Amino acid sequence: MTHKIAIIGASGYTGAELIRLIATHPNMEIAALAANSKAGQSMAQVFPHLRHLDLPDLVTWEQIDFSQIDLCFCALPHKTSQEVIRELPKTMKIVDLSADFRLRDPADYTKWYGNAHGAVEMQKEAVYGLTEFYREDIAKARLVAGTGCNAATGQFILRPLVAGAVIDLDEIILDMKCAVSGAGRSLKENLLHAELSEGYNAYAVGGTHRHQGEFDQEFSALAGRPVQVQFTPHLMPANRGILATTYVKGDPQAICATLQKAYADEPFIEVLPFGETPSTHHVRGSNFVHIGVTGDRIPGRATVVGVLDNLTKGSSGQALQNANLMLGEDETAGLMLVPCFP
Amino acid sequence: MTHKIAIIGASGYTGAELIRLIATHPNMEIAALAANSKAGQSMAQVFPHLRHLDLPDLVTWEQIDFSQIDLCFCALPHKTSQEVIRELPKTMKIVDLSADFRLRDPADYTKWYGNAHGAVEMQKEAVYGLTEFYREDIAKARLVAGTGCNAATGQFILRPLVAGAVIDLDEIILDMKCAVSGAGRSLKENLLHAELSEGYNAYAVGGTHRHQGEFDQEFSALAGRPVQVQFTPHLMPANRGILATTYVKGDPQAICATLQKAYADEPFIEVLPFGETPSTHHVRGSNFVHIGVTGDRIPGRATVVGVLDNLTKGSSGQALQNANLMLGEDETAGLMLVPCFP
Amino acid sequence: MTHKIAIIGASGYTGAELIRLIATHPNMEIAALAANSKAGQSMAQVFPHLRHLDLPDLVTWEQIDFSQIDLCFCALPHKTSQEVIRELPKTMKIVDLSADFRLRDPADYTKWYGNAHGAVEMQKEAVYGLTEFYREDIAKARLVAGTGCNAATGQFILRPLVAGAVIDLDEIILDMKCAVSGAGRSLKENLLHAELSEGYNAYAVGGTHRHQGEFDQEFSALAGRPVQVQFTPHLMPANRGILATTYVKGDPQAICATLQKAYADEPFIEVLPFGETPSTHHVRGSNFVHIGVTGDRIPGRATVVGVLDNLTKGSSGQALQNANLMLGEDETAGLMLVPCFP
Amino acid sequence: MTHKIAIIGASGYTGAELIRLIATHPNMEIAALAANSKAGQSMAQVFPHLRHLDLPDLVTWEQIDFSQIDLCFCALPHKTSQEVIRELPKTMKIVDLSADFRLRDPADYTKWYGNAHGAVEMQKEAVYGLTEFYREDIAKARLVAGTGCNAATGQFILRPLVAGAVIDLDEIILDMKCAVSGAGRSLKENLLHAELSEGYNAYAVGGTHRHQGEFDQEFSALAGRPVQVQFTPHLMPANRGILATTYVKGDPQAICATLQKAYADEPFIEVLPFGETPSTHHVRGSNFVHIGVTGDRIPGRATVVGVLDNLTKGSSGQALQNANLMLGEDETAGLMLVPCFP
Repeated sequence: MTHKIAIIGASGYTGAELIRLIATHPNMEIAALAANSKAGQSMAQVFPHLRHLDLPDLVTWEQIDFSQIDLCFCALPHKTSQEVIRELPKTMKIVDLSADFRLRDPADYTKWYGNAHGAVEMQKEAVYGLTEFYREDIAKARLVAGTGCNAATGQFILRPLVAGAVIDLDEIILDMKCAVSGAGRSLKENLLHAELSEGYNAYAVGGTHRHQGEFDQEFSALAGRPVQVQFTPHLMPANRGILATTYVKGDPQAICATLQKAYADEPFIEVLPFGETPSTHHVRGSNFVHIGVTGDRIPGRATVVGVLDNLTKGSSGQALQNANLMLGEDETAGLMLVPCFP
Repeated sequence: MTHKIAIIGASGYTGAELIRLIATHPNMEIAALAANSKAGQSMAQVFPHLRHLDLPDLVTWEQIDFSQIDLCFCALPHKTSQEVIRELPKTMKIVDLSADFRLRDPADYTKWYGNAHGAVEMQKEAVYGLTEFYREDIAKARLVAGTGCNAATGQFILRPLVAGAVIDLDEIILDMKCAVSGAGRSLKENLLHAELSEGYNAYAVGGTHRHQGEFDQEFSALAGRPVQVQFTPHLMPANRGILATTYVKGDPQAICATLQKAYADEPFIEVLPFGETPSTHHVRGSNFVHIGVTGDRIPGRATVVGVLDNLTKGSSGQALQNANLMLGEDETAGLMLVPCFP
Repeated sequence: MTHKIAIIGASGYTGAELIRLIATHPNMEIAALAANSKAGQSMAQVFPHLRHLDLPDLVTWEQIDFSQIDLCFCALPHKTSQEVIRELPKTMKIVDLSADFRLRDPADYTKWYGNAHGAVEMQKEAVYGLTEFYREDIAKARLVAGTGCNAATGQFILRPLVAGAVIDLDEIILDMKCAVSGAGRSLKENLLHAELSEGYNAYAVGGTHRHQGEFDQEFSALAGRPVQVQFTPHLMPANRGILATTYVKGDPQAICATLQKAYADEPFIEVLPFGETPSTHHVRGSNFVHIGVTGDRIPGRATVVGVLDNLTKGSSGQALQNANLMLGEDETAGLMLVPCFP
Repeated sequence: MTHKIAIIGASGYTGAELIRLIATHPNMEIAALAANSKAGQSMAQVFPHLRHLDLPDLVTWEQIDFSQIDLCFCALPHKTSQEVIRELPKTMKIVDLSADFRLRDPADYTKWYGNAHGAVEMQKEAVYGLTEFYREDIAKARLVAGTGCNAATGQFILRPLVAGAVIDLDEIILDMKCAVSGAGRSLKENLLHAELSEGYNAYAVGGTHRHQGEFDQEFSALAGRPVQVQFTPHLMPANRGILATTYVKGDPQAICATLQKAYADEPFIEVLPFGETPSTHHVRGSNFVHIGVTGDRIPGRATVVGVLDNLTKGSSGQALQNANLMLGEDETAGLMLVPCFP
């Protein structure tokens, strides 16, 4: 059976990435594409790399006949997303890629995003979309909230360690190196090639990045007590990829064994042999996560490095993985693309 | 039916690209991988981005039991390739990605490559692998010679124009901008990141690039008289992509119409509306070719720009397309991957 | 004697490049910096790489006391530049980096820039700022018009050849590869790192780029009859550098000899030995031009490749070189910086 | 007075960088350049960006008449450096850029570099070349050992904090992002553009990088007891720049004040206002260091980010700064080049 799919927010990078993935999905058909600021244009105009695909032209989301749609991806900016989603049919399956439904507590949302939430009821309904850890809930959900790309990376590394109590919960540092597509297709000076190529910098230093809210929520729930990690993102001169260097205290071998056991049956998560370290080059354009553990020369300290592609496993690939579960499809359908190297 | 595939020369970029593509092919199984210098290693060691695939370890080509193999890709350097292929079973289908069987005349081979050809009989047997123009011969061939990546790019632009007699055959300039993966995984100073990033230069200026031999052979045969193009390659700070800016004399509209007609039914070749120009960004990681025609302000002159990914359509994608024909598979199987942008 | 310098338009790349160069000039002092949209900010805020310099804060140009200023650089966008310059003191020396005074004929200006010129009298007064060819006029000028960066590159290659009548004037092709800083610090989608890195494309194909107007004006004047070149710019994934591959008809050795003779005494222009080709890597961040000539295998055709740094020799370095002449300084003062490689 | 300078190891990046800097030095003349593997070549062949300079051709170091030389820079690989330096005149001033004389204890040298030291007496004589902290000793020294580039970066951040006892000495993490030129002009697969661009990875994880030996020696000496930092380098897709994100425990404001006080009079070290963070873009090609301090949301923790250009301040700029002191020149001569941005 072919599922009819709509994408709202199709003129951004995560929208384009969804289309790239769905184009090879055996049982999905893109029935409608919306981008209100570019309604009327063809996708070939907005994203010439999609030129060969037979795609519907862009419309406004209000023009879509949702009665035909089996599942809708919403790839809008936060705040806009909640305003649109609350107007959509209440029975339609939705995967939201924005930040709007990631935080369960309206106060947390307001703390990190600055405005009061405009769809508090739906916020309660939404399931957090970190597939490997919320699989059963996602399969039954109507509304799934895609995670932050940094939040996903950090959790793949840390959730089994927090849950397994093999690390000191008060001494966790996440030094993250993030490719520029994570900032979206937005026109900002620091995202220009001339400003970014050949250099790099930290930003949102000191625990102020919004994905911190997801870490607080998830790790504290897992541990049963408040957990605060130190998280510093860095902007990299590269288009795809997040690498998280994680400094933890605990037995390195136990940490590696915990991760290997946790992900032994996961199709997308590869834990490397102890002492090896991964590279973003080797997951580019794919839905895979590579994680490597090394012990420090200082006993009782380990460095865990994890990588993924922020647009795929960190966003649109995760979203499709969740949609597969919600529609009863094979979880990996459309997602087994091999990383594009070199 | 699943075809059993061998790849000789699996430790280079074109070998890795073949594996990337075949991994999504419905009817191919990689049965053997050879790389004599790295025999004994796993593919995860040589190319960590292939880690998740269940691939055979590398062996020497002499260790392969070819009686089990339906088709063998040979991704070796030129000269080595002819030496290996002449030892392989004479009944096995072979797609060669090297330069060894591209030129039909042994004297041409020696002129451009410097050594006498070591398998002259096979040189006669080989079919030139530019799929869209040798499709029927390829389907019946035992040995197919993959084209040069620059040679493919120039021919996609120029063959219909030469055949259609819509341009001046003595006034053709091909200014080509080539990504660095075309040079392979070889350790040369000018291929280092520190030497290449953030700058660019011409090389093999004056008609000395070896792919010139293919242009001479193919365009002269098409035109029925000697044709010499001017071809200047440039090394670009990018990993994938060739862009050919072609300067020709003729009626721009007729040129565009000729190309649009020639490629109307081709699944991988997109001729843009008159006046639009393509970008390598929009074919990256895919088997597609984009071509655009613009008229110059000087009447009777046109600029035709064509782009493709040198590793895919320029090499391994073309090879798989040919293998599909040789094995009776759908020509596009494993090749409909959407370009990876951004 | 120290000359007091003002820069209007100091928040763009050419403004910053002027400051970088002047900082090492023995006899210049930056007395005022204007950028109306960022007035009130410090240069450290706008360009942190200038943080260590003791520079005046940004003001509006109207706030500058020009009676103190010996020479003013104007690094504004075209059209704005003429509107500002016509209000400045009529006795002050000015080097304009915009396009506003490059074309001597008001009709030409309107043809290429779309609007009527707002300072026609000054347009007549302005001297075209290609230093090596207008040196004496520049030394006596009050208002000098900096050339386009592409226009400079093409003219360094072609002026001696046009003047020396060693090439066919009706068969000149300039295929130019331009780094992104030439587009300035403007917020456009195609200038984003995610859109530009790792790929390239032609633009303004067919003779529509505005620098074409300078080629028409200068080459026609030199030849004493209309000359039209074919000029195609390409946007490169690099921040600094223009490489022009020039296809001409003539005797390659004579072409090389003509260029070597023309530039034998020039401090910034290096003509390579016959058969060598230059690279943008080797002029990055400097005021040097490298030119190389190669003969094609087709007799009577030559390929001339020239490179420079668009921000330095193509813009701000040229401007400083002209200012040196206007102020009676050594022409090379502040300009002998060695290229920054790697 | 003009000092006559020799450079041994002039065909590598640090050699070229020395020449770039010395070219603008008022009182230095390059009298001899050696590179044994490329003896007989001109510098224009080895580094075309130096083509315009009037430089001696490359010779072997044995061919240099050292009686003419006032100071010799030695830019050889470690181990080779000690073997050459012990053969040089014992009265000549030498600045060594290798690792051979950085560690004072022969056992430490053997531990980190694997071989017994071949010039133990000179190892004792050598002064550690971190200019800002060994200024007086350097001025009197005959042999100065340039520091590791990572070692310099980490020490600029941490020395005042260790000495001032404002941080917990057992809880220091240095997460360092290093540009590729730090690996030199060596032909390794992971340094190829196709392997490195658009991605990044950690290496030498767990405290195994050789610059760790310098941290151990220097911080332990400063603290008067053993200090071990955790240090993880990462290879970046960029040519110049090191960024160190340093996680420390202590009062953030006190940490910032300590750094600002320590560097108040230093010409090359800029401590940013509290809460600002630096970028490698803004020191590229220069001798400057930028440091920024931010407090974490977790009380008592601070993140200190420091940046420098590994080839300049991290190596050749530092070497020239030391040579200036040794020769009685102004310490900043030849070193005030403004960073090259964009």
